[in-house]
Amino acid sequence: MDLKIDKHISGQFSKELEGMLSHVLDMGGIVEQQIAQALEAIGQFDSKLAQKIIKEDEKINAYEVLIDEECARVIAKRQPAAIDLRIILAIAKIIADLERIGDETCRMVRAAQEHFNKTERQFLVDLDHMGQQVLQMFKAVLDALARMDSEAAYDVYKLDKKIDKAYEGITRQLMTYMMEDPRSIPKIMDVMWATRSLERIGDRCQNISEHVIYLIKGKDVRHAPTERIEAILAAKK
Amino acid sequence: MDLKIDKHISGQFSKELEGMLSHVLDMGGIVEQQIAQALEAIGQFDSKLAQKIIKEDEKINAYEVLIDEECARVIAKRQPAAIDLRIILAIAKIIADLERIGDETCRMVRAAQEHFNKTERQFLVDLDHMGQQVLQMFKAVLDALARMDSEAAYDVYKLDKKIDKAYEGITRQLMTYMMEDPRSIPKIMDVMWATRSLERIGDRCQNISEHVIYLIKGKDVRHAPTERIEAILAAKK
Repeated sequence: MDLKIDKHISGQFSKELEGMLSHVLDMGGIVEQQIAQALEAIGQFDSKLAQKIIKEDEKINAYEVLIDEECARVIAKRQPAAIDLRIILAIAKIIADLERIGDETCRMVRAAQEHFNKTERQFLVDLDHMGQQVLQMFKAVLDALARMDSEAAYDVYKLDKKIDKAYEGITRQLMTYMMEDPRSIPKIMDVMWATRSLERIGDRCQNISEHVIYLIKGKDVRHAPTERIEAILAAKK
Repeated sequence: MDLKIDKHISGQFSKELEGMLSHVLDMGGIVEQQIAQALEAIGQFDSKLAQKIIKEDEKINAYEVLIDEECARVIAKRQPAAIDLRIILAIAKIIADLERIGDETCRMVRAAQEHFNKTERQFLVDLDHMGQQVLQMFKAVLDALARMDSEAAYDVYKLDKKIDKAYEGITRQLMTYMMEDPRSIPKIMDVMWATRSLERIGDRCQNISEHVIYLIKGKDVRHAPTERIEAILAAKK
């Protein structure tokens, strides 16, 4: 994959940085697969796949530790300044969010899995549409990173509102189910937790989009109002 | 406060690093106050205090951005290696967790606040005991950082199990309430979310304890089994 970082960085590091970024994208690829398989496991009530997902999380954790070590090593060896350093620091933040998305994915699977062997499965179905939206959001932010595209990152940033809306709709619906049939409360609560995890994955995608903008534009847009982010994106590179 | 970092670091940086660490502890102090006041606001149904807490979160966010800038500046200027760099990278991770704890605190207050003006308030009471435990855990990890005490950090690490147990107890209790009186479901759900936020703050304290151990011992203990962490702590500095 062409990482297109050459125009953003100065001279000699580009190989090392490309190597690191390519590890980040590998890690992201595993996380993407985990989310997709989690939705499949939930949709198909597939316990075996659920087990596999929980086991695979170790790989994501190992990537986080590995890439963090790379970050420290490259900083110590290359003593980078300005743009190079910014890329490394952004990478450190991105992988922390990727790791958390992995955790939330496992949490979602564990919560849903409680009901794979029971007859009442209809509640899990509500999750799928929101899940697909979150998966698209994750793919889009990974793609924005791979293409070093701050506008695309900002598109992901804005998507989070849509996810939050879907989340509110589902939780309201689930509460209605609980009120209609109080005996179903424990199992609906598990679906509630799974939905919550999905919503948090959306938040993490938004965080990653902020790091991608920082990486490209050199401006920290966390906690910034929309107008400021848009002004930063409009400014010349 | 004596930060006791001099014995851990090499030569000339100590002033800059002490300055950064002191900012981290200032930030931590604000977060600690936010948690304490959140529990007070919830216990006293104090809407005004709740508003203040939500407003004050901006300060925590600003500290995160400021200290991140300091990290980048000190790395670029000083080109630190080995231990010095480790401290800076650990600081970057610690402040990310502090910021998330600030967010969870606001989330907890917002969820609980929904019921400040209603007559049924008994559910919020269950939260307080767990809240005090989490507050102690937070204080302890901040103290371990200030004193550069990896053993104390590990004590905090182990505390998270206790918090998880308290969390399970409360959620089970809340589910019972919901089943007994389905009309109370929406309000109990808000207490459920507040409890969840507390549980996540406990997780974050555990993360910070891992970063403190990394900072002092130079070993990444995230995702490591207990025996490995204990071996690292037992090894000579």
